[in-house]
Amino acid sequence: MIGGGSWGCAFALLLRERGHAVTLACRDPEQARELAETGRNPRYLTFADLSGIAATTVAEAPVETAELVVLAVPSRAFGGVAGALPGAAPVLSLTKGLDPATGERLSTLVRGLVRGRAVAVLSGPNFAEEIARGLPAAAVIATEDGFLAGQLQHALNSPLFRAYVNPDLVGVELCGAAKNVIALAAGAVDGLALGDNAKAALITRGLAEMARLGEACGARPETFSGLAGMGDLIATCWSSHGRNRRAGELIALGATAEEAIAAIGQVVEGLTTAPVLRDLAHRVGVELPITEGVCRVLEGESLGALAASLMGRRPTEE
Amino acid sequence: MIGGGSWGCAFALLLRERGHAVTLACRDPEQARELAETGRNPRYLTFADLSGIAATTVAEAPVETAELVVLAVPSRAFGGVAGALPGAAPVLSLTKGLDPATGERLSTLVRGLVRGRAVAVLSGPNFAEEIARGLPAAAVIATEDGFLAGQLQHALNSPLFRAYVNPDLVGVELCGAAKNVIALAAGAVDGLALGDNAKAALITRGLAEMARLGEACGARPETFSGLAGMGDLIATCWSSHGRNRRAGELIALGATAEEAIAAIGQVVEGLTTAPVLRDLAHRVGVELPITEGVCRVLEGESLGALAASLMGRRPTEE
Repeated sequence: MIGGGSWGCAFALLLRERGHAVTLACRDPEQARELAETGRNPRYLTFADLSGIAATTVAEAPVETAELVVLAVPSRAFGGVAGALPGAAPVLSLTKGLDPATGERLSTLVRGLVRGRAVAVLSGPNFAEEIARGLPAAAVIATEDGFLAGQLQHALNSPLFRAYVNPDLVGVELCGAAKNVIALAAGAVDGLALGDNAKAALITRGLAEMARLGEACGARPETFSGLAGMGDLIATCWSSHGRNRRAGELIALGATAEEAIAAIGQVVEGLTTAPVLRDLAHRVGVELPITEGVCRVLEGESLGALAASLMGRRPTEE
Repeated sequence: MIGGGSWGCAFALLLRERGHAVTLACRDPEQARELAETGRNPRYLTFADLSGIAATTVAEAPVETAELVVLAVPSRAFGGVAGALPGAAPVLSLTKGLDPATGERLSTLVRGLVRGRAVAVLSGPNFAEEIARGLPAAAVIATEDGFLAGQLQHALNSPLFRAYVNPDLVGVELCGAAKNVIALAAGAVDGLALGDNAKAALITRGLAEMARLGEACGARPETFSGLAGMGDLIATCWSSHGRNRRAGELIALGATAEEAIAAIGQVVEGLTTAPVLRDLAHRVGVELPITEGVCRVLEGESLGALAASLMGRRPTEE
């Protein structure tokens, strides 16, 4: 497991519960050392007992001999880490975003470097805190490799963590990236105190916009109605755990993006992803009004003026 | 406007804001009298100033001369009220449910009695409290009558209330009925403290189950991804305003259905609708595992045992 953030730690716990031998490789050597010494992550999920999980640095991680490499690093770091992986073990990505440098889906960065390396993505409504506390959840494993899909489903599924498979890698990755951007907008609805009616309408239009982009990129429409689409979107937009939702709320209340990140103390993927997603939409010729609005607010446009212009549009057929 | 509950009052306010002359007909004569005297509803939305809206009893309401009759009565009362309407004015139904006596969609009760009476249904994420406070919302007007659709859209649309039209009356009515049943289950997830991951997964599977029933009944799949489907479902399941969600939570915490209704103090449509929806599903040959589970719990089965059996099922493709 590469990435010692909250989702990396929680997923390491899931793997340990299923009887797998896990090494957690932290990008921060100090964090790796503390984790190895105390059996606890000093920064994330500090309540969780990680004993039985080996901890090391990324440089020293036994990647070459691993049966599976799980990546749970921020999208900004994904390309660098994925590009330096030795060995040919299959990769499972837990990261939700696009490559900021190229706009590519993250799974393509893994594949480009080792020919024939199998790659899968796991996505769904999976707040790390809840999973680390042993609460039930469900997720989708997306891969074009049917054999890997079956292996991963067998390795991960348990009464507390239901793992479904879906061959639509493109759709699942786009869902994971786009939902964080919609969550920024949903958080802004909270920050402006516009109410749950407006928030539900925004999320619904947000999923429609995600599905439109997906269709243009060759994804399956059903993926957007599934756990990685609607499921993850509504959790991200509505739960108090949602960091992207919270960041949008703080920004609507007057914080800068940097202040929001500092207040949350963890990566806010939607802020990285929003402009990358907009560029992708322009390339494939799809309009994403909510994503566009998020980008414009991040670039300094007044949120109040934007909201008014959206509500003033002439309504049509749904 | 027939029905002086919270949605009836809030919708009367919307109509007043758009400049329409509104008479609010209460089923409770005492409530009608107080409303006429004080300009306030003594029981629901007590903060709202209803001055300018005439108040009367259902018996004395000027239904025959109205340009539009809006029905916002509980589903249990709908057939009785709709069956006694004089005149031939078009009817707009705000009620979300099925006819408990026959399992029919409510709009069919209006049509059966006056040949040629035009009927429309309004649905979407529309908490009355928020609308009465002037917060923005969006809704779908569903009717097979294109002329009425245009008239209603023109009469209702405003910068604060966006009215979309959708010809799929069957789908919109099934959404409005079924979402309250899913919300009971979502509330039970809250009551059992299973977390937001589990809740998001349940709501996602809930919408899939609603769409399956809709397909079997001739509805359009897109309706279930729209404001009346996903939009209303997520608001009902996640907002603190949601009565059905709250009822499910109270029942999971040990209350009987009657105790939950008493605590909430308003109609809880999901409790009426659940068995009616199950019967409909049996008639059209569709499996609704969540609705079935809700019915079994309402019939006395242990919620814990049911949750465990659902999580223990073998996962498949999504």
